[in-house]
Amino acid sequence: MHSQANLSDNQTITARVRVPLRIDFAGGWSDAPDFLRNEQGAVVNAAIDRYVEGQARWGQDGLRLEYTLDVPPDVHLGSSASIDVAWLRLTYGLIGRQIAPVELAEQAYAVEKILGVAGGKQDQYAAALGGFHLLRFLGHDGPVEVEPLAVSDETIGKLEEQCVLCLTSDRSSSGELHEQVWSRYRAGDKTIRKALERIRDSAQDARDALLRGDLSTLAAMLTLNREAARQLHPQLITPHMDQLFTAAEAAGALGSKPCGAGGGGCVLVLCNEGKRAAVVDALQQQSGQILPFSFAPPVDDPASQSTPS
Amino acid sequence: MHSQANLSDNQTITARVRVPLRIDFAGGWSDAPDFLRNEQGAVVNAAIDRYVEGQARWGQDGLRLEYTLDVPPDVHLGSSASIDVAWLRLTYGLIGRQIAPVELAEQAYAVEKILGVAGGKQDQYAAALGGFHLLRFLGHDGPVEVEPLAVSDETIGKLEEQCVLCLTSDRSSSGELHEQVWSRYRAGDKTIRKALERIRDSAQDARDALLRGDLSTLAAMLTLNREAARQLHPQLITPHMDQLFTAAEAAGALGSKPCGAGGGGCVLVLCNEGKRAAVVDALQQQSGQILPFSFAPPVDDPASQSTPS
Repeated sequence: MHSQANLSDNQTITARVRVPLRIDFAGGWSDAPDFLRNEQGAVVNAAIDRYVEGQARWGQDGLRLEYTLDVPPDVHLGSSASIDVAWLRLTYGLIGRQIAPVELAEQAYAVEKILGVAGGKQDQYAAALGGFHLLRFLGHDGPVEVEPLAVSDETIGKLEEQCVLCLTSDRSSSGELHEQVWSRYRAGDKTIRKALERIRDSAQDARDALLRGDLSTLAAMLTLNREAARQLHPQLITPHMDQLFTAAEAAGALGSKPCGAGGGGCVLVLCNEGKRAAVVDALQQQSGQILPFSFAPPVDDPASQSTPS
Repeated sequence: MHSQANLSDNQTITARVRVPLRIDFAGGWSDAPDFLRNEQGAVVNAAIDRYVEGQARWGQDGLRLEYTLDVPPDVHLGSSASIDVAWLRLTYGLIGRQIAPVELAEQAYAVEKILGVAGGKQDQYAAALGGFHLLRFLGHDGPVEVEPLAVSDETIGKLEEQCVLCLTSDRSSSGELHEQVWSRYRAGDKTIRKALERIRDSAQDARDALLRGDLSTLAAMLTLNREAARQLHPQLITPHMDQLFTAAEAAGALGSKPCGAGGGGCVLVLCNEGKRAAVVDALQQQSGQILPFSFAPPVDDPASQSTPS
């Protein structure tokens, strides 16, 4: 993520931003406002090198603002939050201000509230921070504890070799499913509550597994999250997802889950060592579309840079 | 202003927006939060055919968002509010929602608050509503009474013939000047308070003059606003502005004022009948750059359209 603003002799302002999308390993749904009214949430996610890229140039001849993103809509990789973060960073760039990533994440969340589309905050933090994180959500509209995860280069290399991101054919926007989950939760449904707690608690285990480089446990956490999502609402695991999960498992997957809230979009599969090619082949045979990715590094904090110690 | 969103067979979402800038005839500064803590404000402004144009296309190959605007930065025609409104409308377009103009104006204001650049609300209303309006601001963060002004076609024709919008060479961002004005106001400075009241009260007279087609009175209101701004802070009328005002008056201007808050950017000059060419010539001789414009029509309200009666 990169930003600049300058006012040259002939009054040109330029700004550039690059904001990553994310994959989530464990804990998604536990960052949602309804859950946070009663409980704390926790999510482990990582930014990837699929970016919203934006640039702005404002000179004597006017303004030109451009954003691009190379994934389709509704892939469930947090793209709307990344667009919001990109827009905010570009706007700050135009007015010549810098802003700390955490503040940026909170502001992007506030903008989504204005737009009436606010869910959880994990996407905004991933977009603004980059890298791997455990995020703890301390109550509704409460603070977010950010723990950057120092995942070793060796583990990152193994993850990039063994993880497969695959687009399903399902693109349904899932607002209605979400509302059904939350109305049951608010009505005291114990299955829903326990599933959310399992999802939330799995974030700590996923964090520990990432730090140990223990991909077997991480894979088990993916599958735990998948099956808990199914308990939240059976349609969160679409028929095409189940085809992909079954085919991947037969070909050597260790674990798998929908990305984000499920109900459509991408799935994340963690393969056994040496099984990536077979899993990719199996997913493609089931009409899955592979989205290549690497992990995106943590964002340099321009706000902390501007205050030399 | 135009917006559309659709989800075609191969999953392409497209949206387009066109959001106008504005000129302000009277009342600017009285819409500022500091003033509205104690008093009501009123502004008369009109949207012009200088637009922020935006389009978005999100398909299988990804997202492409573009905005353009054909004026330089810091022209004091409310462009930042128009960009915010364009971004919000485009984002709503992508998620397939429509929104009433007044709600859009308030949301754009909320976004500026998030960005820490919020002043008054007149720009957001002009951008979201189009057309001519008297806006009454009923207290800090209070409601805004919107009176659309049915200015006759004949008067609009005369205004387009007799108004000249001219870019000065001064582009200073005026945050520091503003803070000086408001700290004096908060300290109880009577000159500032009376100047703000005169500015506010002139909005009603400017409204009446527009509805009567009485351009002499309207011109007098422009000049009243200019001289009251000078009392708020002498630097709100820059040396280049004064050169332009003096030259325009000698060539046949009836009245003139800085656009927006002053301190740089554009000036608006209202010429006597038949004197436009001479005024333009005089302004250009003083290094003024003419920005041609017409008035922009009121925005169709998509929210009210979507509820057929």
